[in-house]
Amino acid sequence: MEMQKGAFMRGIDQMIIKDIPMPKAGKKEVLVKLEYVGICGSDVHYFHHGNCGAYKVDLSNDYMLGHECAGTVVAVGEDVTNLKAGDRVALEPGITCGTCEFCKSGRYNLCPDVVFLATPPVQGCYEQYIAFPENMCFKLPENMSTLEGCLIEPLSVGFYAANQGEVGTGDVAVILGAGCIGLVTLLACKAHGAGQIIVADLVDARLEKARELGAAAVINSGKTDLLEEVRRLTNGRGADVVFETAGSAATIAQTPFLVRRGGTITLVGIAAQEEINYNFAQIMDKEATIKSVFRYRNIYPKAIAAVASGAIDIKRIVTHEFDLEHIQEAFGEAINNKTDLVKAVIKVQ
Amino acid sequence: MEMQKGAFMRGIDQMIIKDIPMPKAGKKEVLVKLEYVGICGSDVHYFHHGNCGAYKVDLSNDYMLGHECAGTVVAVGEDVTNLKAGDRVALEPGITCGTCEFCKSGRYNLCPDVVFLATPPVQGCYEQYIAFPENMCFKLPENMSTLEGCLIEPLSVGFYAANQGEVGTGDVAVILGAGCIGLVTLLACKAHGAGQIIVADLVDARLEKARELGAAAVINSGKTDLLEEVRRLTNGRGADVVFETAGSAATIAQTPFLVRRGGTITLVGIAAQEEINYNFAQIMDKEATIKSVFRYRNIYPKAIAAVASGAIDIKRIVTHEFDLEHIQEAFGEAINNKTDLVKAVIKVQ
Amino acid sequence: MEMQKGAFMRGIDQMIIKDIPMPKAGKKEVLVKLEYVGICGSDVHYFHHGNCGAYKVDLSNDYMLGHECAGTVVAVGEDVTNLKAGDRVALEPGITCGTCEFCKSGRYNLCPDVVFLATPPVQGCYEQYIAFPENMCFKLPENMSTLEGCLIEPLSVGFYAANQGEVGTGDVAVILGAGCIGLVTLLACKAHGAGQIIVADLVDARLEKARELGAAAVINSGKTDLLEEVRRLTNGRGADVVFETAGSAATIAQTPFLVRRGGTITLVGIAAQEEINYNFAQIMDKEATIKSVFRYRNIYPKAIAAVASGAIDIKRIVTHEFDLEHIQEAFGEAINNKTDLVKAVIKVQ
Amino acid sequence: MEMQKGAFMRGIDQMIIKDIPMPKAGKKEVLVKLEYVGICGSDVHYFHHGNCGAYKVDLSNDYMLGHECAGTVVAVGEDVTNLKAGDRVALEPGITCGTCEFCKSGRYNLCPDVVFLATPPVQGCYEQYIAFPENMCFKLPENMSTLEGCLIEPLSVGFYAANQGEVGTGDVAVILGAGCIGLVTLLACKAHGAGQIIVADLVDARLEKARELGAAAVINSGKTDLLEEVRRLTNGRGADVVFETAGSAATIAQTPFLVRRGGTITLVGIAAQEEINYNFAQIMDKEATIKSVFRYRNIYPKAIAAVASGAIDIKRIVTHEFDLEHIQEAFGEAINNKTDLVKAVIKVQ
Repeated sequence: MEMQKGAFMRGIDQMIIKDIPMPKAGKKEVLVKLEYVGICGSDVHYFHHGNCGAYKVDLSNDYMLGHECAGTVVAVGEDVTNLKAGDRVALEPGITCGTCEFCKSGRYNLCPDVVFLATPPVQGCYEQYIAFPENMCFKLPENMSTLEGCLIEPLSVGFYAANQGEVGTGDVAVILGAGCIGLVTLLACKAHGAGQIIVADLVDARLEKARELGAAAVINSGKTDLLEEVRRLTNGRGADVVFETAGSAATIAQTPFLVRRGGTITLVGIAAQEEINYNFAQIMDKEATIKSVFRYRNIYPKAIAAVASGAIDIKRIVTHEFDLEHIQEAFGEAINNKTDLVKAVIKVQ
Repeated sequence: MEMQKGAFMRGIDQMIIKDIPMPKAGKKEVLVKLEYVGICGSDVHYFHHGNCGAYKVDLSNDYMLGHECAGTVVAVGEDVTNLKAGDRVALEPGITCGTCEFCKSGRYNLCPDVVFLATPPVQGCYEQYIAFPENMCFKLPENMSTLEGCLIEPLSVGFYAANQGEVGTGDVAVILGAGCIGLVTLLACKAHGAGQIIVADLVDARLEKARELGAAAVINSGKTDLLEEVRRLTNGRGADVVFETAGSAATIAQTPFLVRRGGTITLVGIAAQEEINYNFAQIMDKEATIKSVFRYRNIYPKAIAAVASGAIDIKRIVTHEFDLEHIQEAFGEAINNKTDLVKAVIKVQ
Repeated sequence: MEMQKGAFMRGIDQMIIKDIPMPKAGKKEVLVKLEYVGICGSDVHYFHHGNCGAYKVDLSNDYMLGHECAGTVVAVGEDVTNLKAGDRVALEPGITCGTCEFCKSGRYNLCPDVVFLATPPVQGCYEQYIAFPENMCFKLPENMSTLEGCLIEPLSVGFYAANQGEVGTGDVAVILGAGCIGLVTLLACKAHGAGQIIVADLVDARLEKARELGAAAVINSGKTDLLEEVRRLTNGRGADVVFETAGSAATIAQTPFLVRRGGTITLVGIAAQEEINYNFAQIMDKEATIKSVFRYRNIYPKAIAAVASGAIDIKRIVTHEFDLEHIQEAFGEAINNKTDLVKAVIKVQ
Repeated sequence: MEMQKGAFMRGIDQMIIKDIPMPKAGKKEVLVKLEYVGICGSDVHYFHHGNCGAYKVDLSNDYMLGHECAGTVVAVGEDVTNLKAGDRVALEPGITCGTCEFCKSGRYNLCPDVVFLATPPVQGCYEQYIAFPENMCFKLPENMSTLEGCLIEPLSVGFYAANQGEVGTGDVAVILGAGCIGLVTLLACKAHGAGQIIVADLVDARLEKARELGAAAVINSGKTDLLEEVRRLTNGRGADVVFETAGSAATIAQTPFLVRRGGTITLVGIAAQEEINYNFAQIMDKEATIKSVFRYRNIYPKAIAAVASGAIDIKRIVTHEFDLEHIQEAFGEAINNKTDLVKAVIKVQ
């Protein structure tokens, strides 16, 4: 029996690597030799806390994390028609039913029967090989690397946020939070043509990164009055679109004051607390709209095209790279480095 | 000098009628002999409390309320081209600047320079004659009365709410509140093709009216568990669109639990308190959208067409009618009758 | 082996009935005892001409037509979860792949791998029993008959046309053609809230039916100047939405002159000739939009809800009913009766 | 009486410069010292043919052309609030009524009472000073020149075309025609995030310019099979959006074959002939949408923001610059230079 290596969390804060069977491509599947797998905030949360929101890892068994991945096709199932060995692909990690009302209406991210990598009890992909449905593997063009390929997953969240917020060419966007999701939202907004992007965070190093990636202005909300500063930067108008990516009750509560009359607030970050004290009087007086984002849908081909065309330079968000054998160290860094680390990726072979 | 009669509030809870000069039609204006003027909740609030939200009546002077009106054109200004004496018209009471970015982009309800009847310090129209811009006077077809004409104003709020909520043919709509705005929202949803309309309120008499006007189901939320009942009526799915028209913190807070995955909440009622504790975890998990409604825009011609075609039988919301000389009594009834009274109108002559 | 009866065309203009094997429900399928199957214009075209557009019947074999059907579930496959024996259902006849970019984005009507009943070489459903995927069988509420159920298919075309044309409450709609598709478009427009619906055709009997079903005005374009009359009826403005359902070069060519400035033309009927001389100068001067309709998508649940709520009285389009054994006669009538016959249905048992 | 210089066409193909009275700013107007005025294709057409479409110059009088302009405010009327002397501004040349149904609904480009510079009988702006409504003068940010300012007008056409075509981030766009309008559409598509832009024309020099401005591929349709080549470049899929800017019957007729299933065609160029033989069978089979473009609306602020942010480098379309006294030579070049000349501008002082 052919074997491969895979990394598993064995209880809180501990990674082990062990030999596991090689998967085989089913009829409509391809076998992908993985080259890069990113570390997402949710991976870190499962690793360090054993859960993420309502989802819990069963700690009595080894559990494989990881869902942001790309690699090279090495074998294809008999009914595969569009991919062949040698093709480099990015994998969209949520397999949906295709027949429920959400799938049929194109909102497959709301499919109640989705099977999503590294969302317990579904296993992730910190491993050398994975068999995956052909239709969820998106071919990368020649000028894109598999490192860029694995970043399509986090980029998709920001890209979808920009779509939901309907950010238009020339618009003013305010992004709350300059972590990984804040920064991919920034890159997506730029690619969507936003005219002025203002990013706020509490950590200067992150804001520095935001400026580097194209923010017209950055605000350290710990040191400056955020509302005042946004008002000044927008000549009193406020933002056409406000993206909340920090997921804190405080930043969510700021959104009604930052958005302009008739503008849109897009909620991306998930707050720890369920209920938040929110100023709906502002919302109604401004006739503002509030949109929300649950994962993403129908983004991969467009996001790949945007990276391939040069509109988005996604690899610049990567600050740390580790080999698979150093995955324990990688997760340690991801937990502890709250300043420099934007995005860490695991290089598989 | 020609004179006419007009009703004014002289301090809290008191109406007087006095003679005032007849207005004259300006170049692009028409002179309208008013026949019906409705009593809106905001009129009652000004009358009884001296304010409505941030707007305050200057009680040191007599102040004329009223903004829902219709009548017959009796004279036209020299540049008027589309209307003539004898035309019956409904008046849209907010005159906007036509040149700001909101006006130019068709969102004139957000115009910061709007002049809106009976919003202090702008006078209202409890009077016999008014001179008004031709472009804000909408001709009524032969099969519509001026009583129906004056009801186009409140109907427009519900109609616009249905537009903002993008209620579709065959959709399930839940409407919280069966007061006047709840009921016009119900009528508008029906005309927009909603498949199943569920109305909730605390007063049985109002729910009875809702059922009469086309609600498929009504729920007294004081006696029945609202969430449970909506779940049951929708086979566990929730509503495609939830309209909040009651304007209470409690009902606003219920909306995330009533809406279905991917659905829309439309906020119509204005709550007394600015901040509300709100479950955003539900919103994000369902990827719901929250829309809001500030007055209305571009509704009059479509609402008139919907009434003329029979799709909306708007006159059925009228429960009380008074002559202008009994306006004091009319307002008293509007303040005190919390059960039977849905809509009172003043017949001017 | 259990047998059932099925009707087949055996060459042009000839129907035979023969015994065929009973189907069995697969894992995710239900077995439906069919009660009504409609006769569509495409069925008649295949029967009389051997083809419909590019699709051709292989006349060397018997071929079963029919794709508008409803009946009662009599057995369910082992993985069926939402339906059970005794449920009455309407069948959506196009089974799509669920994994292509069109399916994923909710536009499954454009799926290149669709399997559509009675589109050669796929067999139809003029038979007693059919095994069909659970997710394509839509449960009918108690107050709907299976006769109404089989009419959901043609209704869906009109309903989808109304969606594509974005007909709004209070809008003026002009419908060219008062055949079955014209009439279901009329019913759908009414349910979508259209304020004034004008229908044009060359046959007075059809126009009579249109008026009966809710047209505000009807025009016999053979006797009256269509453009002139629409101009008169709309006070010179033209229609907000024009639906072309006749599928003739002449009527398609009329659409730019009927639509108002900024309005929408929706092409529903398929013309025999591929190229049509079309006045694009009108289109551009009016900044009109042209939409088109290919079958339908995501309509069944909404259309069923609209019929169940009473917004659409679909059974009124049925003018002729035949038993399965008289299917030859039914098709003869459908070919020859160009005036009275709007919709014929086959009652299966 | 203060005088200024203005250029007028005096019959076909002849320009003269003469002294005319200085205008004065009305109450809500500003007086602008013009610095740059572009030469539009329509200006050239009036100059050389005496008409443009249905609009005709009255050749018995001198007539001033020009409508793409920018300059510096030198005086303001008494009711002007947002601009002051010294502000540099771009002028939107169409003054609309603000009260018709099109203006109210934000589609002011369809206003029947528009007063548009250099559309006979309305005079243009090849002159030193113009008095213009404040709300049509858009302030340029510090990092934008008035040369860029005068180019906002042609850019707005391309920008609006991109909006109408709803070109999305990562989309494939095909642009037919690489004249000025083709190139501004290209720049706008890039700013809107299009992933792959393919431009076709018959003149290599123009295609070279298109490539320089960001086209991923260019096609000389006189030398290469356009449909074949687009098919090859898009892996057989066709374009998400096709923009027709050449305005020839031949290119309009190609659009149904270039667009992908479910895609959008946007008509920008105006053909000389009113009727065109068009393949609607393709449109319906693909369920394509056809949009059209009449001037533009609500674009200036967004287009200025896009230029200011660097997303669009509009000044690169300028190939020729002339002083006002050489306007005769400028128009001669514009008529005769069919290859190098993309955009000529007049420098006023």
